[in-house]
Amino acid sequence: MIAILTDFGTQDNFVGVMKGVMLRIAPAARLIDLTHQIPPQGVREAAYSLFTARPYLPKGCVVLVVVDPGVGGSRRAVGVKTDWGLFIAPDNGVLSYVLDQEASFQAVELADPAYHLPEVSTTFHGRDIFSPAAAHLAAGVDFFDLGPEIDDLVRLPSPRLEIREGLLTGEVLSVDHFGNLSTSFHTLRWIEGNQLKLNPLWQPRDEAVRPVMFSPGAVTVEVGDLSIQGIKATFSEVEVGQPLALIGSEHTLDLAINQGNLARDYDLKVGDRVTLRY
Amino acid sequence: MIAILTDFGTQDNFVGVMKGVMLRIAPAARLIDLTHQIPPQGVREAAYSLFTARPYLPKGCVVLVVVDPGVGGSRRAVGVKTDWGLFIAPDNGVLSYVLDQEASFQAVELADPAYHLPEVSTTFHGRDIFSPAAAHLAAGVDFFDLGPEIDDLVRLPSPRLEIREGLLTGEVLSVDHFGNLSTSFHTLRWIEGNQLKLNPLWQPRDEAVRPVMFSPGAVTVEVGDLSIQGIKATFSEVEVGQPLALIGSEHTLDLAINQGNLARDYDLKVGDRVTLRY
Amino acid sequence: MIAILTDFGTQDNFVGVMKGVMLRIAPAARLIDLTHQIPPQGVREAAYSLFTARPYLPKGCVVLVVVDPGVGGSRRAVGVKTDWGLFIAPDNGVLSYVLDQEASFQAVELADPAYHLPEVSTTFHGRDIFSPAAAHLAAGVDFFDLGPEIDDLVRLPSPRLEIREGLLTGEVLSVDHFGNLSTSFHTLRWIEGNQLKLNPLWQPRDEAVRPVMFSPGAVTVEVGDLSIQGIKATFSEVEVGQPLALIGSEHTLDLAINQGNLARDYDLKVGDRVTLRY
Repeated sequence: MIAILTDFGTQDNFVGVMKGVMLRIAPAARLIDLTHQIPPQGVREAAYSLFTARPYLPKGCVVLVVVDPGVGGSRRAVGVKTDWGLFIAPDNGVLSYVLDQEASFQAVELADPAYHLPEVSTTFHGRDIFSPAAAHLAAGVDFFDLGPEIDDLVRLPSPRLEIREGLLTGEVLSVDHFGNLSTSFHTLRWIEGNQLKLNPLWQPRDEAVRPVMFSPGAVTVEVGDLSIQGIKATFSEVEVGQPLALIGSEHTLDLAINQGNLARDYDLKVGDRVTLRY
Repeated sequence: MIAILTDFGTQDNFVGVMKGVMLRIAPAARLIDLTHQIPPQGVREAAYSLFTARPYLPKGCVVLVVVDPGVGGSRRAVGVKTDWGLFIAPDNGVLSYVLDQEASFQAVELADPAYHLPEVSTTFHGRDIFSPAAAHLAAGVDFFDLGPEIDDLVRLPSPRLEIREGLLTGEVLSVDHFGNLSTSFHTLRWIEGNQLKLNPLWQPRDEAVRPVMFSPGAVTVEVGDLSIQGIKATFSEVEVGQPLALIGSEHTLDLAINQGNLARDYDLKVGDRVTLRY
Repeated sequence: MIAILTDFGTQDNFVGVMKGVMLRIAPAARLIDLTHQIPPQGVREAAYSLFTARPYLPKGCVVLVVVDPGVGGSRRAVGVKTDWGLFIAPDNGVLSYVLDQEASFQAVELADPAYHLPEVSTTFHGRDIFSPAAAHLAAGVDFFDLGPEIDDLVRLPSPRLEIREGLLTGEVLSVDHFGNLSTSFHTLRWIEGNQLKLNPLWQPRDEAVRPVMFSPGAVTVEVGDLSIQGIKATFSEVEVGQPLALIGSEHTLDLAINQGNLARDYDLKVGDRVTLRY
């Protein structure tokens, strides 16, 4: 199985062409679209989308990522192998959030032209380099045949999450189709006594960060012009049309309007600063 | 085969994640997208989309519907079995129009956690409850294993269609990508002598409604600011850019502009009142 | 395998319904979406999309095209067979650019009702005529069983490309999701000594056109209000935010802004005149 994530949109035939290329090389491959509507050149949005999708994909999956603002320039094309599966992507940090969760991995540069299309353009490596590599892996080619091993993958900084006594500062990590926001307050879980426990997922690597605990009813969440009191368990705890904070399906702090569109109504976007006072 | 209908859009990885969940449970399943662009929380639009798609899907199909404004609240998650196939959906009426056409059916609540993901969020039951149920059915799990049988499914009121001598009153049921409208004047067929016969599909259950017959050339159709004389057989009977009424591919009365966009040009939408004088 | 190209968008269930129809007839068929977002009734855009996709699809593929402004009128529904594969489409010229590249082909009218759905609407031949034909071919029905052979397919004029000494005049052929333009300056290849060679792909049939050669650094490309000096090899040869001309992945002259949206910023669209002075 090959799962595909791009910023190509669905207006053009780019994704269809990549599927044609893959099915010529690996006719039995299952192809799954994660999304093709990552904002153009949205490396960080793609990194987060991969991070949330990964736990639900079948083990052994090949994940093909083409969000590639540097196409045709000096950025490398890479393959990454983890205990879970295989990734094919440009070397621009797009795999960072997934790899942050892995104890170890191996990477190669997709340098062997035997696994490219015969003719490689300067503008569509998705078709000419990345799709063939993913399909060859799905068809059984050995990972290390794709090119020489490398150990210096580009990595993105971790999502912002600063912890001071009584004040947490983070950022908006994603805005979905419904206008709901996910934030970098991650990972949040309900614990006994109706307390919330924040166990920071992305920690400064040289510094131990301890979990934070607080009462959901007593917190104030602020983003842009919006201030929300308390954290709810479900949408239906507020009236239709009201904003709320709740724990999202990825154990992030999420912000939303019940049956409305928070991002649009409050003009909020990825990267906006979010604070939580407790 | 699993056919999927949601309001998730294609911007996020939600649908891709659901497919990952399903293929982990049922690796051989065929997955078909009906659409993911039902308007957010558009239960009625989804009900009508299912109604028009159902006759063209293979018998024995599993239909997975996730249009779920009540996620995380008290609405139930349900499965429905008909002579034709299987449906997995929130219990909010979204299956109404399909079930209106069935002589009988059986329903269960998706209550057995053995067929949920191990961890169930409060905001993404599409991933955690509905997709696993659909996949387990596709993989051969018995329908009645999913949970206890129920007999009180939520049902939507039928589409509006009032019949008085010489005047029919209905509503817009859908607006498509081309700006063409389908209405609740349903079912219309041409009969001998170039007459039209309206044989109401959704009848008041306690009252027999007799078919109506009229001459297509002599009718006036009105919606919003628009008045159309006569009902045509094909688009090409009017000039490019002209509005027309015709019998749609579902035997509804449809309204359109030949090679134009009627909904946009006349600001028309689902639920708008339509009259037909004959 | 069946590759599908339409202008149906993804908002409605039209494409899902067509897939249901096809899988009832050919349950083992692989279905690939090229795109469904050809501009409504965009026959020329679809012709170009097919032209760019064709070389990357598996040999023996069935290509199903439904961009059909004349549905229900007198235009024919046709099948076309080439050495490469099979095409099902309305007879409105949409196959022109693909067929321009073929030495020979055979065509039939889809006239045999045995390969239509039992009931054929006047508005949705994609479901009732085209999809069944494509699926029957994929399931092994002989091409010539679909209907009588014809030899008068509708053909579009070729893309504009006028060659005078020192001045080439063409047009914008496509605008993609990133706002990048492809033009009718086609086919361009780098040759030794860093020269560019334009070997016109679509030639006037009664007139031999000789290749043109020029130095990429010395040319001026003009479209709308924009004037670009020189042709680059990759996006990264200009700063982020700067316009450039480069050779696209189809060996067309392409125009773009590095990590920006040229079509939007300069209000450019398909059919706009482009000149190249050398």
